[in-house]
Amino acid sequence: MATAPAAENLFDRALKRIVGAFRDVTGAAPTNAADEAASLLAACLAGRGGEVSARARAARLAQLYLAMEPPERRAFLLSLASYDADPAAVDAAMDAVRAAPDDAARAAAKAQLRRALEPPRVKLLTQFTSLPDGMKFLVDLREVLLVEVRAEPRLGPLEADLKALLAAWFDVGFLELRRIDWNSGAALLEKLVDYEAVHTIVSWRDLKNRLDSDRRCYAFFHPRMPDELLIFVEVALVKGLAGSVQQLLDLTAPLLDPAAADTAIFYSISNCQRGLDGISFGNFLIKRVVDVLGSEFRNIKQFATLSPIPGFCRWLERRLADEPALLSPDEAEALGTALAGETPQEGRAALAETLAQRTWHRDPELVAAMRPVLERLAARYLLIENAGARGAKRARDPVAHFHLSNGAKVERLNLLADTSDKGVRDGATMMVNYLYDPARIEQHHEDYVGEGKRAASTALKRLARGWS
Amino acid sequence: MATAPAAENLFDRALKRIVGAFRDVTGAAPTNAADEAASLLAACLAGRGGEVSARARAARLAQLYLAMEPPERRAFLLSLASYDADPAAVDAAMDAVRAAPDDAARAAAKAQLRRALEPPRVKLLTQFTSLPDGMKFLVDLREVLLVEVRAEPRLGPLEADLKALLAAWFDVGFLELRRIDWNSGAALLEKLVDYEAVHTIVSWRDLKNRLDSDRRCYAFFHPRMPDELLIFVEVALVKGLAGSVQQLLDLTAPLLDPAAADTAIFYSISNCQRGLDGISFGNFLIKRVVDVLGSEFRNIKQFATLSPIPGFCRWLERRLADEPALLSPDEAEALGTALAGETPQEGRAALAETLAQRTWHRDPELVAAMRPVLERLAARYLLIENAGARGAKRARDPVAHFHLSNGAKVERLNLLADTSDKGVRDGATMMVNYLYDPARIEQHHEDYVGEGKRAASTALKRLARGWS
Amino acid sequence: MATAPAAENLFDRALKRIVGAFRDVTGAAPTNAADEAASLLAACLAGRGGEVSARARAARLAQLYLAMEPPERRAFLLSLASYDADPAAVDAAMDAVRAAPDDAARAAAKAQLRRALEPPRVKLLTQFTSLPDGMKFLVDLREVLLVEVRAEPRLGPLEADLKALLAAWFDVGFLELRRIDWNSGAALLEKLVDYEAVHTIVSWRDLKNRLDSDRRCYAFFHPRMPDELLIFVEVALVKGLAGSVQQLLDLTAPLLDPAAADTAIFYSISNCQRGLDGISFGNFLIKRVVDVLGSEFRNIKQFATLSPIPGFCRWLERRLADEPALLSPDEAEALGTALAGETPQEGRAALAETLAQRTWHRDPELVAAMRPVLERLAARYLLIENAGARGAKRARDPVAHFHLSNGAKVERLNLLADTSDKGVRDGATMMVNYLYDPARIEQHHEDYVGEGKRAASTALKRLARGWS
Amino acid sequence: MATAPAAENLFDRALKRIVGAFRDVTGAAPTNAADEAASLLAACLAGRGGEVSARARAARLAQLYLAMEPPERRAFLLSLASYDADPAAVDAAMDAVRAAPDDAARAAAKAQLRRALEPPRVKLLTQFTSLPDGMKFLVDLREVLLVEVRAEPRLGPLEADLKALLAAWFDVGFLELRRIDWNSGAALLEKLVDYEAVHTIVSWRDLKNRLDSDRRCYAFFHPRMPDELLIFVEVALVKGLAGSVQQLLDLTAPLLDPAAADTAIFYSISNCQRGLDGISFGNFLIKRVVDVLGSEFRNIKQFATLSPIPGFCRWLERRLADEPALLSPDEAEALGTALAGETPQEGRAALAETLAQRTWHRDPELVAAMRPVLERLAARYLLIENAGARGAKRARDPVAHFHLSNGAKVERLNLLADTSDKGVRDGATMMVNYLYDPARIEQHHEDYVGEGKRAASTALKRLARGWS
Repeated sequence: MATAPAAENLFDRALKRIVGAFRDVTGAAPTNAADEAASLLAACLAGRGGEVSARARAARLAQLYLAMEPPERRAFLLSLASYDADPAAVDAAMDAVRAAPDDAARAAAKAQLRRALEPPRVKLLTQFTSLPDGMKFLVDLREVLLVEVRAEPRLGPLEADLKALLAAWFDVGFLELRRIDWNSGAALLEKLVDYEAVHTIVSWRDLKNRLDSDRRCYAFFHPRMPDELLIFVEVALVKGLAGSVQQLLDLTAPLLDPAAADTAIFYSISNCQRGLDGISFGNFLIKRVVDVLGSEFRNIKQFATLSPIPGFCRWLERRLADEPALLSPDEAEALGTALAGETPQEGRAALAETLAQRTWHRDPELVAAMRPVLERLAARYLLIENAGARGAKRARDPVAHFHLSNGAKVERLNLLADTSDKGVRDGATMMVNYLYDPARIEQHHEDYVGEGKRAASTALKRLARGWS
Repeated sequence: MATAPAAENLFDRALKRIVGAFRDVTGAAPTNAADEAASLLAACLAGRGGEVSARARAARLAQLYLAMEPPERRAFLLSLASYDADPAAVDAAMDAVRAAPDDAARAAAKAQLRRALEPPRVKLLTQFTSLPDGMKFLVDLREVLLVEVRAEPRLGPLEADLKALLAAWFDVGFLELRRIDWNSGAALLEKLVDYEAVHTIVSWRDLKNRLDSDRRCYAFFHPRMPDELLIFVEVALVKGLAGSVQQLLDLTAPLLDPAAADTAIFYSISNCQRGLDGISFGNFLIKRVVDVLGSEFRNIKQFATLSPIPGFCRWLERRLADEPALLSPDEAEALGTALAGETPQEGRAALAETLAQRTWHRDPELVAAMRPVLERLAARYLLIENAGARGAKRARDPVAHFHLSNGAKVERLNLLADTSDKGVRDGATMMVNYLYDPARIEQHHEDYVGEGKRAASTALKRLARGWS
Repeated sequence: MATAPAAENLFDRALKRIVGAFRDVTGAAPTNAADEAASLLAACLAGRGGEVSARARAARLAQLYLAMEPPERRAFLLSLASYDADPAAVDAAMDAVRAAPDDAARAAAKAQLRRALEPPRVKLLTQFTSLPDGMKFLVDLREVLLVEVRAEPRLGPLEADLKALLAAWFDVGFLELRRIDWNSGAALLEKLVDYEAVHTIVSWRDLKNRLDSDRRCYAFFHPRMPDELLIFVEVALVKGLAGSVQQLLDLTAPLLDPAAADTAIFYSISNCQRGLDGISFGNFLIKRVVDVLGSEFRNIKQFATLSPIPGFCRWLERRLADEPALLSPDEAEALGTALAGETPQEGRAALAETLAQRTWHRDPELVAAMRPVLERLAARYLLIENAGARGAKRARDPVAHFHLSNGAKVERLNLLADTSDKGVRDGATMMVNYLYDPARIEQHHEDYVGEGKRAASTALKRLARGWS
Repeated sequence: MATAPAAENLFDRALKRIVGAFRDVTGAAPTNAADEAASLLAACLAGRGGEVSARARAARLAQLYLAMEPPERRAFLLSLASYDADPAAVDAAMDAVRAAPDDAARAAAKAQLRRALEPPRVKLLTQFTSLPDGMKFLVDLREVLLVEVRAEPRLGPLEADLKALLAAWFDVGFLELRRIDWNSGAALLEKLVDYEAVHTIVSWRDLKNRLDSDRRCYAFFHPRMPDELLIFVEVALVKGLAGSVQQLLDLTAPLLDPAAADTAIFYSISNCQRGLDGISFGNFLIKRVVDVLGSEFRNIKQFATLSPIPGFCRWLERRLADEPALLSPDEAEALGTALAGETPQEGRAALAETLAQRTWHRDPELVAAMRPVLERLAARYLLIENAGARGAKRARDPVAHFHLSNGAKVERLNLLADTSDKGVRDGATMMVNYLYDPARIEQHHEDYVGEGKRAASTALKRLARGWS
């Protein structure tokens, strides 16, 4: 059974023909793109012509939109957003719901109300899906909307509609998991380099190293955007928990025979489509990859991340400034001595200053002195600190929140794990291993989501409890 | 880039593990499937556990459902249907809409109302999509619902929800056109034989003949149901308009070199999934295939169907009984003579009786006498008769309505075109060619949908006007 | 990386163009196919033109050949066969070998002699390989040659050349193993039905049953004949050694869960291309499939055939007539009684007569009486009888010889295992299980090929020793 | 129909098992690799064991060989080469040929002689083909042999045997043409970068530029070496004949819409496997690509190369030194003046000196003065100069000889076409367009191969005739 040859292109040509015809039919050509777009929007939403015409108009609209400058685009989006549900129809439908004499009538009236509430712009958005690259067009449209909506709240409902549509279409049930390796197409690998958001890929050699025989890379794809990565994860197969990302990325490190590995380290996970923000697949990706690896390598016993703690330093700075009892007297004294001063006050100040210089990690003596304090405070930050009043039970660190929500356990802290500029600045070189134990994922997830209980190793729990 | 090996199965295994775990957790095993299903439904809709648990429950629910007997199934469906929107929340949301002080507040309130109106059962239905075969499960579920809803109207809203979901997922933008030929898998071809609804395929030899080098067969598939046909069309490449389906299906007819053909005849189009009733792709399929064939065979100038007229005889019988002036005096006399009697009255009766015997088509003299009358009345039936009071402008014949809606033109009538039992009984052996002219499809569609104007050849229009 | 689109067809067109050009160039068109073929052969072997021309001529030759009637074909083949090595060049090269003064000169002279011995027709045959379907053309050509050479020995060297070429091209290193199942293309399955040589496939239902979930079918393919089966084997996954082929092929037998099977039975192996006679892959196919199944099903412990004994009855008839002491006195008496007579002589005659009637297998009493004798004689036939004077150490039964050469062991006899007409006539309903034990295959093979030692179960060895 | 899963690996495992078993069986383990290899060679050629054992031994031999140091390898190769045809058997077979009483006997005797002449080492070489990567092993083995044979002529016959085998297996009939583009796997593209032999690829950006939408790249592959390029050609789609390779490779040059191109320029063609030296596919590759492009782009009217003239400067230097009348008096004078001196003698000397400096091409005045002389001499070099005594009718320039043999025509000279160091040093910046006109390829080929006639444009022919 063969896929119909070049069908996409033919359909495309058909659309072009119809677009052409349509423009002829509309008579006097609109004087500019905005006018043409407006008239297309109107025709589209008036439901003139068959479905083929409707999609031809969508194609033309996409073409016009892509050629517009930002201000024109904003106007166009507002115009699109204005095709809202008819208030009179909504009111009438609400009246009918209230007036419904019995259950059946009420059910029918509610169905009618739902239809009345569906804004006409939703139907138009749907018509883009059948265009070649139409799905990518919609994802990119939402990326623009997410920016524009900040300045123009009237775009909010349009953005929400689009998000709801994308959430339905990008349900994990529709996603395809594919392995990416050095045999993957260069065009795809080039995108992967662009999308890597955690540890920048600096060269094709760096990339090749990350796709070597002791590495794995998996991504989700959508059938309607087959050439676009949605999210991908990079995995290293190692012995024992990895504690340094620079070591993992070292081009000169020897290859490990994957059959000798006992641990899979998820050291980078990147979302690729800004237009899908808020539609989550990271959770599923990790679990699918755990499953795939567990089946390929019987010898792998433990699945863990090596994750940044992006909010640690920012939080720590504030605490160093605000919280006199942050350090125990012993800590304060020890630090004060090691870093130069004498009193507890000076201990905090000295730590703040030393951290601010961002060179301490190269001095083994400073590291030795700071390690116990930094580890204790990182444990507290991850396991005890909350994300403000509302989320009283939610981990303050966003990465911690992501993995805890997924059912992971905070396993081990690693000082000097990321000595890149970013690693020193944001996390004081500290990284953390989150452990994914397939047998406990669900329980941990429920405990965290339900009661705000954070799973952690005994050592970290003890550490977090603090000095008092 | 390789697709992750056997990932589906692994995920499946993971689900099984979780299903098992879940059952253990729930403690005392439910005494029967209905109870277990009810408790799963409740857990599911209460949103307990993470998404993976949720889908594991969906898997278990599907398993239970598939093992149920019809009465149990009905009870289960009613239980599922009962997870409706919360009336209090709907009322509150309606109040908020009415009370909204400004546009922004009203927009937010409407969004809230839409959420309140979304029945919880919709979320559960969505969870089936990520199961292996989950999409087929939902399609089949709707097939059952369409039957059950007749006896149990309370299932209506559930059926409507499912239809709306399926309509979104089976948007033509997601469908894949594939050619089917003698190299297609036997498992797929076996399904095609089962699904053929117009001209039964009687043997593998018959099937092979329909997939020969002067034939084409195309179908739509959905990425989440890759082994299931959605709709397919069978095409013969011929010289001139085909006027006999028995000739087209004749196993002993010589092959035509497709390069010598000037006409593509769409002689059979079958929907395959009862659960997708009311979600239309036929329109798009024909147009896509016209496009594909037009590009492969430059010499093909005309695209037409050879279609049955399924309602002709039923309509004619009633008219012969009810409408004294149905035949012109000349027709009545001629028929009366040829078929045996003398007066106009006898002409109608004779025709009715002759048709009822269903052997007339084997007698060339009878055929010659009846041909002008049958052709005139078929033209009238197709071009003038309306589908009752409401659809005053809609063709009475359902097949005619389908093709006219698609923008086709009624081109030619063919007596003796289908001499099978069904062809004689329903259509008096008459079939009709609907012509798809890519340049006019949209205009015809608009004229028919807008004004009820039916496109037809000059000859047929004249014929339809009748004797008076 | 995409395969160049439709390259084959383009090349084909190019060839057509060149063939056309060539015909124009040759001026006066030959008056008939034979003349044209002769002139093409001459041009071809004279090496006129480049390689593209050469292949164009080969294409034209193939076309002419395929349109010829048998007598013309024979003439053409003789003409092709006549392009032999140049005797003078061979003589000169032989002289040079004899005259060579030293090793280096002798090596060079021998290389020259090999070139001189290579008949020009070999080069022409090679040119067919690059035509679309050229490899299949050559295979079919040899099939014809194998027939023709019986009547015309002068075709012998041509046939031998072609066999040597095909043996090189169809080296098992080039073959591809593919599984065939119910998802395989109907065109391929249709060929499988045609090629099945052991147990005829009587319907698509029969075929489907042989491809069900408790069955496996594997075939070898060649990259230059991708749509053609070379050899295939049908396997049933069962519990314990299967002892009846009718049971295996029973359409109403229940499915076995393959995970519950402990034995794989190879019940049919068919060569598909007569033109590859004498080029053996059966050996490799069985071993590859043993390996594939062993890896897919960990629970399968034993691999065996259920094989016919095609020469048993023919051999037995002769022995019954010739060998007075064939039966022991006890056997003779018992048989004589059971089958009707009294003396040993009568025992043999009665057995011969009963077998000749071919209905005995339906009478349980007859079967009970004959079983011990038939089993003992079958064991002797398989394990002791030799294939004539030359092959003193070779099993007389060809199927036994095939499996013993492959390293199999004769494991068990099964009376009533094949009650089809052919099974009764050739094997007296007896079939035999040959066991393939991966750990012993090589040892058995060496023992049989080297010393003529036949591996067998203890029970069968004892049985074969006979009565005296 | 699915390819049997992971069959290669299973077979591989089977081989390993057998290799292991074999080593056990041979008892006392050989003390070193050379001894083990020798004993394997002996066992192999003695034909011990079945085919599976034979291939297992081949696998072990390959393993041992790959681990050997150069001196050991040489010894191993000599040992392999020593398995020559049996001299006594050859003598006896030659006697039989001479003594043959009739044609049939002679034919049989010659067949026997051919078998006797086939060295046993050939059979061993063949056994490598079925190993995973076995074909690549043999190709690499020949690469080594081509080097070793220079120092050790006794390896000649082995090298010749291997070449003959490879020539049969790499017949163009078995090759697969694939397009390579930016979607091709990175692993393959990396090899392409390594293999590019004409215009070095300096970065992934350079590579991407060569695979852009106005470029094409095609390669031949072999089914038994699917990840290895055999030969590839890079093509630019342009308007008019391209005259500068630096322009073609300019990363900043604008993209041309391929639909607007009228010419395809083959600007780089590289052989990738040294082990296939002397087995030619370049000819076929160009013609296949001409055909593919001609079919994809109807607007492309002309197919040409932009080729180096690698031997031009070396030839010109000698002529400038040896041939007093190389320049016409006018040329000599003009050059003398422009480049500095006065007499004809000085003209030649001045030209020689100027060329030797390799900077002249940056001075427009020097270029203007030298252009007519360099063009005339290049035309003479390409169209008149012969490759020494033996090849009196063969173009002296190897690239010219390649394209003329293929049926191309020398169309246009381009000064300043390659201003790279290599281009200035070897070709005095001159490149030449060879034109491939599908309608004339065969005629040109025949004229050149048969009569040594070189096809060229009228302008170049006139130019080549020279001044006298």
